[in-house]
Amino acid sequence: MNERYGGIEAGGTKFNCALGDGKGRILDEETFPTTHPTETLTRAIEFFRRVEPITSMGIAAFGPLDLNPDSGRYGWITSTPKPGWAQTDLLSPFRRALHVPVVIETDVNAAAIAEGRWGAARGLATFLYLTVGTGIGGGAVIDGRPLHGLVHPEMGHIRIPHDRARDPFVGMCPFHGDCLEGLACGRAIEARWRAAPKSLPEDHPAWALEAHYLSLAVASFMATLSPQRVILGGGVMHQVHLFPRIRAGVLDLLGGYVPAGEISEAIDEYIVPPALGDQAGILGALALVSPDPPPGPR
Amino acid sequence: MNERYGGIEAGGTKFNCALGDGKGRILDEETFPTTHPTETLTRAIEFFRRVEPITSMGIAAFGPLDLNPDSGRYGWITSTPKPGWAQTDLLSPFRRALHVPVVIETDVNAAAIAEGRWGAARGLATFLYLTVGTGIGGGAVIDGRPLHGLVHPEMGHIRIPHDRARDPFVGMCPFHGDCLEGLACGRAIEARWRAAPKSLPEDHPAWALEAHYLSLAVASFMATLSPQRVILGGGVMHQVHLFPRIRAGVLDLLGGYVPAGEISEAIDEYIVPPALGDQAGILGALALVSPDPPPGPR
Repeated sequence: MNERYGGIEAGGTKFNCALGDGKGRILDEETFPTTHPTETLTRAIEFFRRVEPITSMGIAAFGPLDLNPDSGRYGWITSTPKPGWAQTDLLSPFRRALHVPVVIETDVNAAAIAEGRWGAARGLATFLYLTVGTGIGGGAVIDGRPLHGLVHPEMGHIRIPHDRARDPFVGMCPFHGDCLEGLACGRAIEARWRAAPKSLPEDHPAWALEAHYLSLAVASFMATLSPQRVILGGGVMHQVHLFPRIRAGVLDLLGGYVPAGEISEAIDEYIVPPALGDQAGILGALALVSPDPPPGPR
Repeated sequence: MNERYGGIEAGGTKFNCALGDGKGRILDEETFPTTHPTETLTRAIEFFRRVEPITSMGIAAFGPLDLNPDSGRYGWITSTPKPGWAQTDLLSPFRRALHVPVVIETDVNAAAIAEGRWGAARGLATFLYLTVGTGIGGGAVIDGRPLHGLVHPEMGHIRIPHDRARDPFVGMCPFHGDCLEGLACGRAIEARWRAAPKSLPEDHPAWALEAHYLSLAVASFMATLSPQRVILGGGVMHQVHLFPRIRAGVLDLLGGYVPAGEISEAIDEYIVPPALGDQAGILGALALVSPDPPPGPR
């Protein structure tokens, strides 16, 4: 059987369209900037018309999204501040043009699913994928399925302790000021230190502070979700020196409270980088429709 | 069919044993103090010998618990500071004495399941039950099933912002100092104000502070889990004036970010007290083995 699947990583700055074999391999791919919805979706449809036939298609999209299959707006981007994209139906144009089933998921949930299927969380049932880049987002897989709930998680927006004596920066989240994203996303680092994060050396105080905030966040996510593993991806986490700092910070914050050898004795395998790197998003889109078994038993 | 089920609410201060009809009704019940494990478990077994036959039995227990069915210590209380109870097998004594299947769950997860089956979350698939009493604990039901993950959540131990100018109290969690439980459980209120929480009038500043901390916690749990409803139970929440304050606090903290009418337009039905009151624990134990359908479709 040579099934072929379509995938779109629909991001706020670029769209990545791919043809996949359903086993984590990409056969054809095209990336272009996210402009006006009509123009962007038309260009995506053209890609899939070129590579047809496909069996089905997965979309991993920025949001917030309506993921309720019973809603009249299932598959819509809802309240994004991105100009032109609020209340945009991402799903129907592809269903109508390509006549195949289309599945949609948040970008972070899709990346989590890909890491569970083919990457750093293979074989695990319950785990967390956190991306720390321009923004901060989290995708959780619980008992093998992405967590949606009422809408879908917005993990970048939890509140964490903010010591204003140590860090007077007020935070840059337009909704919450100093929530996790407001304090620790790439744009926050840039605004606080008035320098591109990439330009800051490893011993710059920016990184000790960043590791502190991410440790607080990971410890709270662990207390809430009890994941079997925590994957930290996104551009900021390209600073690999953050990993040992965050691992140490999390152990310190937990204070020995959670009785699990997976944490206390093997933290290096518990808090890990993504195995799929920057491909987690597009592979996540493909994973949504690929026929492999779910990532793990209960 | 007149099936009869056994349930135990195994708490740190008392054991509550019950015979139930599997439909949320209690037919017989006995409560006694939690003393030494052997004495306490023997007394529980005597209750069930008296009311036999039962089809199966559920235990809703304090923890931390080993809930991994593949573990050699499935059903054990693990690292509790309660004298005599660390490394106690709660399950096998009942299996051996009563020759029935026995299921075990954390007390908060069981209470959540009961609220989903017969109470304030009937018909919902994904919701949160938070108990604020002597300690703070959270049980989450995700797609109809209790969240376990690596161990089980310990939601009382998330970190929240702590403004030491407003509240110089250092917190009383022996592991974390000023985690949520350390700042906002009943014992923390008592230690901070040197008065029994019940004795503090509604206009005492204790309650504005308590509502603030619980709002921060609920907002963070909402960002992480996206529950369809949040149930707040436990002794501290007998202060019903906390509900409107927490609802207002959560709306303020969210800042309109989560696009859901269930929150923005119906917060009174979104953050609610338990419908089963102080019976949620024992009904939770019975719900673990009662044959009703799961609380909600996906």
